[in-house]
Amino acid sequence: MIIYNSSYLKQFTAQVFIKMGCPEDQAWIAADCLNQADLRGVDSHGVARLSGYIRLWELKRLNATPQMSILHETPSTAVLDGDKGLGLVTAPHAMRIAIEKAKIAGTGWVAVQNSNHYGIAGYHAMMALEHDMIGISMTNASPLVAPTFSKSRFLGTNPIAVAFPALHQPPLVIDMATTTVANGKLEVLQRKGMDAPLGWTQDKDGNPTTDAYSLKKGGSMLPLGGDRDHGGHKGYCLGAMVDIFSAVLSGANYGPWVPPFVSFLEPPANQVGNGIGHFLGAIRVDAFRPALEFKENMDKWIHTFRNAEPSDGQEKVLIPGDPERELTAERIKNGIPLHEQVVDDLKKLGESFGIEFEDKFEDRK
Amino acid sequence: MIIYNSSYLKQFTAQVFIKMGCPEDQAWIAADCLNQADLRGVDSHGVARLSGYIRLWELKRLNATPQMSILHETPSTAVLDGDKGLGLVTAPHAMRIAIEKAKIAGTGWVAVQNSNHYGIAGYHAMMALEHDMIGISMTNASPLVAPTFSKSRFLGTNPIAVAFPALHQPPLVIDMATTTVANGKLEVLQRKGMDAPLGWTQDKDGNPTTDAYSLKKGGSMLPLGGDRDHGGHKGYCLGAMVDIFSAVLSGANYGPWVPPFVSFLEPPANQVGNGIGHFLGAIRVDAFRPALEFKENMDKWIHTFRNAEPSDGQEKVLIPGDPERELTAERIKNGIPLHEQVVDDLKKLGESFGIEFEDKFEDRK
Repeated sequence: MIIYNSSYLKQFTAQVFIKMGCPEDQAWIAADCLNQADLRGVDSHGVARLSGYIRLWELKRLNATPQMSILHETPSTAVLDGDKGLGLVTAPHAMRIAIEKAKIAGTGWVAVQNSNHYGIAGYHAMMALEHDMIGISMTNASPLVAPTFSKSRFLGTNPIAVAFPALHQPPLVIDMATTTVANGKLEVLQRKGMDAPLGWTQDKDGNPTTDAYSLKKGGSMLPLGGDRDHGGHKGYCLGAMVDIFSAVLSGANYGPWVPPFVSFLEPPANQVGNGIGHFLGAIRVDAFRPALEFKENMDKWIHTFRNAEPSDGQEKVLIPGDPERELTAERIKNGIPLHEQVVDDLKKLGESFGIEFEDKFEDRK
Repeated sequence: MIIYNSSYLKQFTAQVFIKMGCPEDQAWIAADCLNQADLRGVDSHGVARLSGYIRLWELKRLNATPQMSILHETPSTAVLDGDKGLGLVTAPHAMRIAIEKAKIAGTGWVAVQNSNHYGIAGYHAMMALEHDMIGISMTNASPLVAPTFSKSRFLGTNPIAVAFPALHQPPLVIDMATTTVANGKLEVLQRKGMDAPLGWTQDKDGNPTTDAYSLKKGGSMLPLGGDRDHGGHKGYCLGAMVDIFSAVLSGANYGPWVPPFVSFLEPPANQVGNGIGHFLGAIRVDAFRPALEFKENMDKWIHTFRNAEPSDGQEKVLIPGDPERELTAERIKNGIPLHEQVVDDLKKLGESFGIEFEDKFEDRK
């Protein structure tokens, strides 16, 4: 692992996106989105993914200068055509539309089609917070997850994020894949040579397995809950819900037709929509009750749950968003660790654009 | 088990609610809601629960003639004061308001405070279907579930329901508690003298247990996923989300302050809101894309997933809502089985209101 300064990584990322042709403001938003993933500990969705976006752009599957347009709208809804843009750009744009609609109609809901991978779901949801709004964000993703009782990879990890503003307490931020675990946790086990717990994945025939490499052998991830006895059918329901909101409502591809993020896989034939889809929502809290009242009660909720009695052997009870916030503070201070192969990848990427990716951590705050 | 005709049970239920003082139209809606639970196989939320509502009414914790009022509204939102009414009545009323708002604003969202148990979440969500709308329904409930790492019972089973209309296919209906299993499944194991799988509950100290009686011994239910390794913190997030939408947004009680359904437990002191809370939403699909287009794609989604390849040893892959729909058809035809103790309870209830609950199944269709 090599430690890098967070703002250095963000600056490098923005420069790469600018060289790719992104308008400067969009490049910085996209860079911020990847940077927040690194700060929050979702390392798979941070700068490590930068070269993946570039490869899609090289294949013309991603458009650096999208002409985004609203296909249809009502006072509280809109459908946005992302024009094959970065999801890191189309989703924040959609969220801004949702926020503007919520100012007038109380809530705003924007479905996005013709988009690409949008980074971490929580980034977009959290945009609502400064407006005293609840933010909601979901997206479908490349199919790796099998429906209950099936061995077909038909769903993505399809995350859901919801961000609630509070008063003196930090906001409560939920940001979760609708699978038992994210792929990144399997990779950690692979590096350590360890088995996975039952309930994370299944083999290519749909049998339970503890093989941390099962996904690479044609197996599939399991929806949150794992097997049927442990409520896996509910995780399947959640993944299905995200797929439908993100893609059937927007006119994007759903289920097995969702185009893959990795550039070495071709998008499936006979597409049923355009690109991948997202669904963003903004709810003005004072469309329900005075914002101060809501936020005071959020503080009380958070205080109460943080003071729930720990189980034997546990130290404390967490609030959704606590671990990410603690890690963010730590990484702003001490830097972001990158695997050597990520560093090599970024160096090559920099070279191809004539931008130096420096060897070592330097404090550029 | 004694088999009863579904429409006989519904008629009996409506008569009881009328005797309790409900306006006739409200009594029939409430009866329909309980009846649909029985038909869909959620036996714990059907006629078996009828006397529970009556006991709350006897204690004046439930109002048979609520004067429901809108406390605040915007084009796409409202807060409804349920005036201590049956949730079986306040939630359908709120859903009708949401549907009317969606007709004009594209979506409608109604938070309900000062309400009581609302039956099955799916009933209210499905009300949107005939309007070519997506229906959403959630509620908080008596605290039985512990946050991750805690032994405090701070959340209810807090269900989420979402109903999506389709064209030739039946609608896709998700209706799920945000726990690994519902309490009813523990009761089944208790009757059979069997242990529960790990991940369903924990003991009073927060340790994993297979004791099917653990809840009755001061233990708690686990959020969907079970322990931390299996994503239980995500189930905790979902339960928290439902609690906040239902109660912090509406002004109802949340977390440990949610009043219990059972009449022998007093509501907690120092209430933080009014009654329990619900959150209902209606999304007009043609606020996003033409309804026909959406429904054709829903058909394709459903067809695709129903034809996913079954795992070894499995026969077919289900679509959310399939099992409930199949059971409904079967129970309309063959009747609804009731435990003898439920039958005794209903007989006594009937006697106290001067309504005979008949001994045997009779076809009154």
